[in-house]
Amino acid sequence: MKIMGISGLPGSGKGLVSEIALQKGAMVISMGDIIRKEAKKRGESTKETAQNLRKEHGQYIVAELTIKEIKEILKEGFDKSIIVEGIRSPFEVDLFKENFDNFIILSVFANPKLRFERIKSRQREDDTTDYEIFVERDQRELDFGIGVVISLSDKMIINESDLESYEKEIREFFEEYDI
Amino acid sequence: MKIMGISGLPGSGKGLVSEIALQKGAMVISMGDIIRKEAKKRGESTKETAQNLRKEHGQYIVAELTIKEIKEILKEGFDKSIIVEGIRSPFEVDLFKENFDNFIILSVFANPKLRFERIKSRQREDDTTDYEIFVERDQRELDFGIGVVISLSDKMIINESDLESYEKEIREFFEEYDI
Repeated sequence: MKIMGISGLPGSGKGLVSEIALQKGAMVISMGDIIRKEAKKRGESTKETAQNLRKEHGQYIVAELTIKEIKEILKEGFDKSIIVEGIRSPFEVDLFKENFDNFIILSVFANPKLRFERIKSRQREDDTTDYEIFVERDQRELDFGIGVVISLSDKMIINESDLESYEKEIREFFEEYDI
Repeated sequence: MKIMGISGLPGSGKGLVSEIALQKGAMVISMGDIIRKEAKKRGESTKETAQNLRKEHGQYIVAELTIKEIKEILKEGFDKSIIVEGIRSPFEVDLFKENFDNFIILSVFANPKLRFERIKSRQREDDTTDYEIFVERDQRELDFGIGVVISLSDKMIINESDLESYEKEIREFFEEYDI
């Protein structure tokens, strides 16, 4: 049982890590969901709440709220792994490491060309077929410091070949790291 | 025949990439050597020259000098691959991509724990057995933007298992990318 974060640029394939974690009985907490929940409470847009939360409580409030939620879940006796989605800055990583022993970051890597091809073909609501918008979205994540988070990961998986071998690598990682 | 850059944090294992490239007849150009050469000419320390060059000619002068040197080498008819060591910022990568078609970045990744163990055991002149100094050195590279360079690499090799399989991966990469 571990608490860990997933990192990786858009289109790298983080989603499958969460899916397999859920199958194994782990809990997946998205930092984005924490903002969305708060936005609903406040009757604001997610973007407004993200900005307001930081204005009111500092830059790391979302990580702090997530840590608080995890501590409550642990207090209630949850004893499987907890996966945190949406960690983008090295300061957030530090906060999680301070609060949870053995907190680790797994990053998923795929080269930009491949990530763009994937995003073009999956066309989720927030996806784009425009290369410039793809680059801007990467840049937004990189501005938060995700490049540092990825480079200092405890574990990296490259997701550039077929889905089967990627899934196998994730499952091996889960076994090895006791997730 | 290609022109490419190598990236990776200290202790990740970039050196073997250059070694194998040399064996294959490629040329290895170190941005650090370009500064050292200029420092010798000026009779200054490398650190002084690095600072002075940037003061006199802007932040990307070392990349610009390297690009100039590569262009001269190509003009002289060199027709094997050229490997550039020491690229640390995404702006430098952009400069190389603007000047050379098909310029690619290969990054080598190893987790921080493993990199520190390696650095402790190899004890090169600039290496350290002190974890805080290791972290500071990482941070200096990350401040230049190496995390962005690594995260946006065209190719990533993970160097966390044995030397033989790492060497095999490098050779496969060289074949696949026509280095």
